[in-house]
Amino acid sequence: MKDKFLEAMWNRYACKEFDESRIVGKEDFEFILEAGRLSPSSFGFEPWEFLVITDPKRRLEATEHSWGGRDRAMGASHLLVVLNRKDDLRAGSEYLDGFMKDVQKLPQDIIEMKSGAFKNFQEDDFKILESERTLTDWAGKQTYIAMGNMLTAGSVIGVNSCPIEGFHREKTLEVLDEKFNIDTEKFDIAYMLAFGYAKGDAPFKKTRREMGDFVHFD
Amino acid sequence: MKDKFLEAMWNRYACKEFDESRIVGKEDFEFILEAGRLSPSSFGFEPWEFLVITDPKRRLEATEHSWGGRDRAMGASHLLVVLNRKDDLRAGSEYLDGFMKDVQKLPQDIIEMKSGAFKNFQEDDFKILESERTLTDWAGKQTYIAMGNMLTAGSVIGVNSCPIEGFHREKTLEVLDEKFNIDTEKFDIAYMLAFGYAKGDAPFKKTRREMGDFVHFD
Repeated sequence: MKDKFLEAMWNRYACKEFDESRIVGKEDFEFILEAGRLSPSSFGFEPWEFLVITDPKRRLEATEHSWGGRDRAMGASHLLVVLNRKDDLRAGSEYLDGFMKDVQKLPQDIIEMKSGAFKNFQEDDFKILESERTLTDWAGKQTYIAMGNMLTAGSVIGVNSCPIEGFHREKTLEVLDEKFNIDTEKFDIAYMLAFGYAKGDAPFKKTRREMGDFVHFD
Repeated sequence: MKDKFLEAMWNRYACKEFDESRIVGKEDFEFILEAGRLSPSSFGFEPWEFLVITDPKRRLEATEHSWGGRDRAMGASHLLVVLNRKDDLRAGSEYLDGFMKDVQKLPQDIIEMKSGAFKNFQEDDFKILESERTLTDWAGKQTYIAMGNMLTAGSVIGVNSCPIEGFHREKTLEVLDEKFNIDTEKFDIAYMLAFGYAKGDAPFKKTRREMGDFVHFD
């Protein structure tokens, strides 16, 4: 499994051209989503929400303000828009209390303890509540954990992908609000992922710094 | 491989108590680092730097201002501190020009094109250059992609882990500067990961929202 895992990581690259005629099967796509679902997040709060778009016309709408992903998204089989919560994630929110009770099934005394720790963390340690931007950026970070796992999961089953940050954030949010019924008071956009099958081979050889260039052993 | 990948994801949890007597072997730890190294990042700029601490006394120093990770880091076999670059990542920086030339081996005309796209992305699309905080948060996001892959890689080979955001960021940076020779003008701290072998079984059953609770099909 070690070799196959690394092979999947080596094979993954930001696919620039997908084969429009090939669709990722339902089970395979669910496997990718499952890798996202099972990903960890700070305090286990899963601050993400996924929007899956398959219809080409709708993908064109969603990527209207994208320069870095429109072509890729079009040829792909699935476009996954990943959103993150914002205000709901303030320590003490009704949403988080409900989440700890209903999803995490925690008893009331643990909820109170966890709430207190989370409040200190947000206010003092990471100063996450300084602005709306710092809050959404912190929540966004958590969704990048899921990104790592979903891209690797795709590669494990031979599905190519392209992560997309190349779009105008505010204008794209407007489109999601107006045309996709996303409550942009509650959700921000973190990134998009295009999944499908590449047309041809990877155009470049993967490059990375050598381990010794960025790993320091104390 | 599909089943084994999901099994690894199911088995991973934030380990609260490590068996101090068990050390992660050199090859296994390198496998985990390799999963980080091969992770994608925006524009392929790999904005991360890793600090590996194994000596218990040194781990105690690094986690001096941590409430959420000190005990875990102590029992673990390896503590990995993940840092991210800041100012170096401004479009047009000498560092990025060097990176595109020496690591990515891009020809000069492509470097100029990529620089321009990156500048627009930072200034306009994602408004990353609004403040020092937005820049470091954006760079930090990229390191969370590597986090996802490293935690999953660990689980693939039966290594337990605990991701740690539970520390005072500024005070920990001071320690890294003073005692670990980290240039905190250049680097910010993103998170820490403890790796080792759990003492006993997972204390909780993993909880997650159901797919239908957060995945919307357009």
